Amino acid sequence: MEQAFVYVVPFMGIIGLIVMAIKSAWVTKQDAGDANMAELAGHIAKGAMAFLKAEWRVLTYFVIIAGIILAWSGTLIETSSPVIAVSFVIGAFFSALAGYIGMNIATKANVRTTQAAKTSLKNALNVSFTGGSVMGLGVAGLAVLGMGSLFILFYNVYVVSTGANVNGLEMSKALEVLAGFSLGAESIALFARVGGGIYTKAADVGADLVGKVEAGIPEDDVRNPATIADNVGDNVGDVAGMGADLFGSYVATILASMVLGREIVSADNFGGIAPVLLPLVIAGLGLLFSVVGTLFVKIKTDNDSVQAALNKGNWYSIILTVIASYFVIDYMFPEGDLVMIREGSPSFTKMGVFGAVFLGLIVGALMSIITEYYTAIGKKPVNSIVQQSSTGHATNIIAGLAVGMQSTVMPIIVLAAGIYGSFLFAGLYGVAIAAAGMMATTAMQLAIDAFGPIADNAGGIAEMSGLPKEVRERTDILDAVGNTTAATGKGFAIASAALTALALFAAYVGLAGINTIDIYKADVLAGLFIGAMIPFIFSSLAIAAVGRAAMDMVNEVRRQFKEIPGIMEYKAKPEYEKCVEISTAASIREMIPPGAIALISPIIVGFAFGPEVLGGMLAGITVSGVMMGIFQNNAGGAWDNAKKSFEKGVEINGKMEYKGSEAHKASVTGDTVGDPFKDTSGPSMNILIKLTSIVALIIAPHISEGDGHGHANLEKEIIKEIKVEAIKEIVSVEVLKVD
Amino acid sequence: MEQAFVYVVPFMGIIGLIVMAIKSAWVTKQDAGDANMAELAGHIAKGAMAFLKAEWRVLTYFVIIAGIILAWSGTLIETSSPVIAVSFVIGAFFSALAGYIGMNIATKANVRTTQAAKTSLKNALNVSFTGGSVMGLGVAGLAVLGMGSLFILFYNVYVVSTGANVNGLEMSKALEVLAGFSLGAESIALFARVGGGIYTKAADVGADLVGKVEAGIPEDDVRNPATIADNVGDNVGDVAGMGADLFGSYVATILASMVLGREIVSADNFGGIAPVLLPLVIAGLGLLFSVVGTLFVKIKTDNDSVQAALNKGNWYSIILTVIASYFVIDYMFPEGDLVMIREGSPSFTKMGVFGAVFLGLIVGALMSIITEYYTAIGKKPVNSIVQQSSTGHATNIIAGLAVGMQSTVMPIIVLAAGIYGSFLFAGLYGVAIAAAGMMATTAMQLAIDAFGPIADNAGGIAEMSGLPKEVRERTDILDAVGNTTAATGKGFAIASAALTALALFAAYVGLAGINTIDIYKADVLAGLFIGAMIPFIFSSLAIAAVGRAAMDMVNEVRRQFKEIPGIMEYKAKPEYEKCVEISTAASIREMIPPGAIALISPIIVGFAFGPEVLGGMLAGITVSGVMMGIFQNNAGGAWDNAKKSFEKGVEINGKMEYKGSEAHKASVTGDTVGDPFKDTSGPSMNILIKLTSIVALIIAPHISEGDGHGHANLEKEIIKEIKVEAIKEIVSVEVLKVD
Repeated sequence: MEQAFVYVVPFMGIIGLIVMAIKSAWVTKQDAGDANMAELAGHIAKGAMAFLKAEWRVLTYFVIIAGIILAWSGTLIETSSPVIAVSFVIGAFFSALAGYIGMNIATKANVRTTQAAKTSLKNALNVSFTGGSVMGLGVAGLAVLGMGSLFILFYNVYVVSTGANVNGLEMSKALEVLAGFSLGAESIALFARVGGGIYTKAADVGADLVGKVEAGIPEDDVRNPATIADNVGDNVGDVAGMGADLFGSYVATILASMVLGREIVSADNFGGIAPVLLPLVIAGLGLLFSVVGTLFVKIKTDNDSVQAALNKGNWYSIILTVIASYFVIDYMFPEGDLVMIREGSPSFTKMGVFGAVFLGLIVGALMSIITEYYTAIGKKPVNSIVQQSSTGHATNIIAGLAVGMQSTVMPIIVLAAGIYGSFLFAGLYGVAIAAAGMMATTAMQLAIDAFGPIADNAGGIAEMSGLPKEVRERTDILDAVGNTTAATGKGFAIASAALTALALFAAYVGLAGINTIDIYKADVLAGLFIGAMIPFIFSSLAIAAVGRAAMDMVNEVRRQFKEIPGIMEYKAKPEYEKCVEISTAASIREMIPPGAIALISPIIVGFAFGPEVLGGMLAGITVSGVMMGIFQNNAGGAWDNAKKSFEKGVEINGKMEYKGSEAHKASVTGDTVGDPFKDTSGPSMNILIKLTSIVALIIAPHISEGDGHGHANLEKEIIKEIKVEAIKEIVSVEVLKVD
Repeated sequence: MEQAFVYVVPFMGIIGLIVMAIKSAWVTKQDAGDANMAELAGHIAKGAMAFLKAEWRVLTYFVIIAGIILAWSGTLIETSSPVIAVSFVIGAFFSALAGYIGMNIATKANVRTTQAAKTSLKNALNVSFTGGSVMGLGVAGLAVLGMGSLFILFYNVYVVSTGANVNGLEMSKALEVLAGFSLGAESIALFARVGGGIYTKAADVGADLVGKVEAGIPEDDVRNPATIADNVGDNVGDVAGMGADLFGSYVATILASMVLGREIVSADNFGGIAPVLLPLVIAGLGLLFSVVGTLFVKIKTDNDSVQAALNKGNWYSIILTVIASYFVIDYMFPEGDLVMIREGSPSFTKMGVFGAVFLGLIVGALMSIITEYYTAIGKKPVNSIVQQSSTGHATNIIAGLAVGMQSTVMPIIVLAAGIYGSFLFAGLYGVAIAAAGMMATTAMQLAIDAFGPIADNAGGIAEMSGLPKEVRERTDILDAVGNTTAATGKGFAIASAALTALALFAAYVGLAGINTIDIYKADVLAGLFIGAMIPFIFSSLAIAAVGRAAMDMVNEVRRQFKEIPGIMEYKAKPEYEKCVEISTAASIREMIPPGAIALISPIIVGFAFGPEVLGGMLAGITVSGVMMGIFQNNAGGAWDNAKKSFEKGVEINGKMEYKGSEAHKASVTGDTVGDPFKDTSGPSMNILIKLTSIVALIIAPHISEGDGHGHANLEKEIIKEIKVEAIKEIVSVEVLKVD
């Protein structure tokens, strides 16, 4: 009976997908507004699909080539299999599908939200949040279904059918093959996030620089040729990119916990697979309770707080998941001590495992709260940027950079405490399961995140179609809430990525057959330095790409204003599709170098310098990536809201300053600098640190120094003892006296 | 005879100081120009001394309190001594003295350079470079004399008089006490660098924002009340701050090599102390050959290249030092294998030691070349910033940030290769001795560095006194060369700091009695994260401090323009001293929080979480600090030269753009943002990473897990073996089969 429990997991995924389909159908049948709105929405949807198709074309080549290499590499060693290529392709396909589902619903929900906003805020929230839920449930449902089904398959083929030990080689092989799914998901995520991020910011910066600054027309004005590209960008970057990103995170977290779970010896209970199964079960539970949570996201009148409604839904799903996790862990895990089969791992109990889940959720919540403090209007950090805008562009930038750097302190302390605490609770498995707990309600988190860009688009359509002021006011309320949820979502994402990366790191160490990552060794330390540099070059490439693509966009918009007479008088329509093409081409072209660095650098270092140096490199990437991610996300968010502060007016040196003042202009500079920080390079850091760890995990058995399965290598131990003896002889008599 | 060789070292220091005194006297007797020039120079000298006095007042309290704590802590354990407090006070005093010597000569040389520039470039170079040499020889002379004399003292007291083993506890104690000297030097350096950095940039940014931007008067105009403070800033930041900085680096590098040298067993040769003595001897040789090198820094006519003259002097001193090092190492070290008494250390030969010295010099040279590429006018990186200035402030900033991040790649690869290579040559001692080799010609390096701000000041005095155009042209040539040497000097400084920090790190591991810094352990990894965050909060505090202090300055200058009628018509003199007071007060106030973080955080982590977690933290600080240092220094340097590119005109989109264009205004924004990057927070990273390592080294015996002397702890080894056995039992039969 107990082993059959494993079949429950894909069912939970299917339930999530069924609810998704119902919600999707509901959104589709809502009123899509008049012909004008439909035309604009059509442009946006077409542009978004054009980008996806172009992206998929490039990625298809990548998937084929990487798949062949993986299949070949799977034949080289006993502990892997060419089947890994199949998982990889499925993972890549599911990731792309998750992005597609999100974008498809978002480009429908946007115009329907605008239409709903004609009647009430309540209806507008309902449509936009249901759109977001479709994405959330789609991502989580596909992940749970995919991981659950593939695990059943590989578990049966490699372990059950051979009657092998669930802590042994065959189970390790099943999980190694399953890792292909995560590699597929995460590599698509990287390209989607980076490509989407470059797209959206190139269009945004380009549209602003010529439209707002040179031509003096408002944002989202139909006369701006880049405005459709800008709205497409919200969908490809903030929706499809983010969907693929969180799909990748979710899968990676589950995988890392499963790999570490294999090492826990609990053979007398639950067929021995409870620790491997638990992450999947928690994910399934989180998905179901996210469905429950979405029911609570409702307001009654236009005066009710949208943020409060979102928080309510979020907390319900979290609390229900925690309670259910308690009972599930209690049911699945044996009494008494649990031990991991690797040197240096402490023993722990099942309540320790639950403690780690709980701690993970607390860390996630704290990260969101801290992020909100550093990026919210009216709080001290944003206000310091506002004040320093009064002395010009430069002091605005200095203030924003200082805020971004400062904002790393509390998150890092929380994260360090989380690592330390979850390790005390349940060893390395605790660190992984804390991340899994944090990610459990991804469906709900993503629903909240994805509703923001839908509302943003809805506002754009309202503006472009010239709808009455109260419609725009309602979409603006949703958009403002969306800005906050975007910032807090990023804080959450980086925390979960950090814990996941650490869990993958631990899983890697096991598979690579090493017992330490000793940075006191010169080569490992060199690896740490090289690793720490990767996020810098990655960010540099992403930021510079936005700069270049934005310049292309600026030149195209300037050309259209010059060569197409009558645009400014509404007599001629701009060639929107030209701008869409530029953003698409630039983002596809520019996403390749950073993506290649992330994929290739761990392979080179691993094969050239061995597993321990690669371990040092992974640590460097993780630490530096987390710092750069928090720094860039928060600096960007703070600059954005410093600019927004001027909309209602701010007091500087006892005088009220508004939009259009010199201080406001300085704040626009900060916002523009912050755009690639917070929407391109910053959020890519999550994926970078996870992807490099997964690549390392995949190559671990190939570069392994030991048997590749995480057990102390006898030979190495013997050499060590001989060495110790030799050193003892050298030590002078005087010193030995003290010993 | 051989043991007597140790007495040669302080003599070399004394020779350096004698040459310094001769050069100083020569500068002093040069013509100081007319009354007007003398008055301005007097204002600058007075302001500079006022800052030094204010700084010393605060630091005196610090030295007394820290000294008492050190003396007390020295009584707690057998392996230290209250005498450490005496070394600490002497180190602090010497560091302050080095800063004073530099500033004293710089405030004399500046006006004499202006006067000399009236006749020829040759004479102007002669005066300004001789001024720089005084500083270089003073710093290196004091370091060699101080370290050499104290070592002789402690070596005799603790080792020779007791007849103890030179690899043993008593030698360790002598070096632990000597470490106090380095702690004193480095902590004064930190405050001097940060305080000076805040001072100079607050004055610079403040003077520019009101003077150039609002009032429309040129830089260094006598009507600007902040102009004297700006010129004082060049002296307190770029001269006194840098002098204390390099003094600290130099001492720390020598110390780290000596501590590691103690662990090398070569008892059959040179009284066994050759490895401990070598770093001192190399430093002494470098000092003497720097004196020789200065003789080659000469030009004949105004058309000769100043840069070429500097390079010639630099290369002569480096090459002579390398050759001499070869013979010295060959003479001092025994034939055959050298072994360090710690687990995991490879054996090496004396030619390996020489190889490491040589490699260190190559790394230093490469770092300078790479830094120059990323910050030089006309090269691709700076040009990309120039091009992106055409679309506004924001794209200029984005481009600069991208260049800064990108510029970390090559230096990190060089550094990683240097670490790896020097370890292969001579183990951990090789890493330390590579740093020592790189730092050997500090006297020459510093002479080249310090000549820049002297020339800058000379130009300021020429401008303020309204001297003829050709005078200013000559000082401008020197100033431009000074900008390049400032940038390359920073590349060199960060590389040497990184190697020194690693050497200190290795020395710390020995003293802390741990065998690994295993980041695979959760608590060590948490330490790594916390460490990586420290450079971010440090930079944030430093940058924000400049922002705040500049705002104070802006308000004061605005007040004077308003309340003192006739300033703009040269009828009334501005109150220069008020601006000097503001910069002084702000910098003294603001230097304390970042300084406190650097000093206190390793102590807290070390005592609360033990030596291995502190090791993780040190690695985090070092890696993150090196990245942030390179990023900030190079971004700042590139922005500066992007702005300077407009002075001669640049081609953007096929059109020539000059000073005053919109693109130039955007480039000024970048330069202002870059100011605190490159002159406050960036260069402080060097000191931060070294100081935290020295603090760790000092507390190491107090938090040691073993015997505190770097030998494998027998008890620990036994426990480990038992653990390994236990784990082997747990591992399933199937798995064992593979083993």
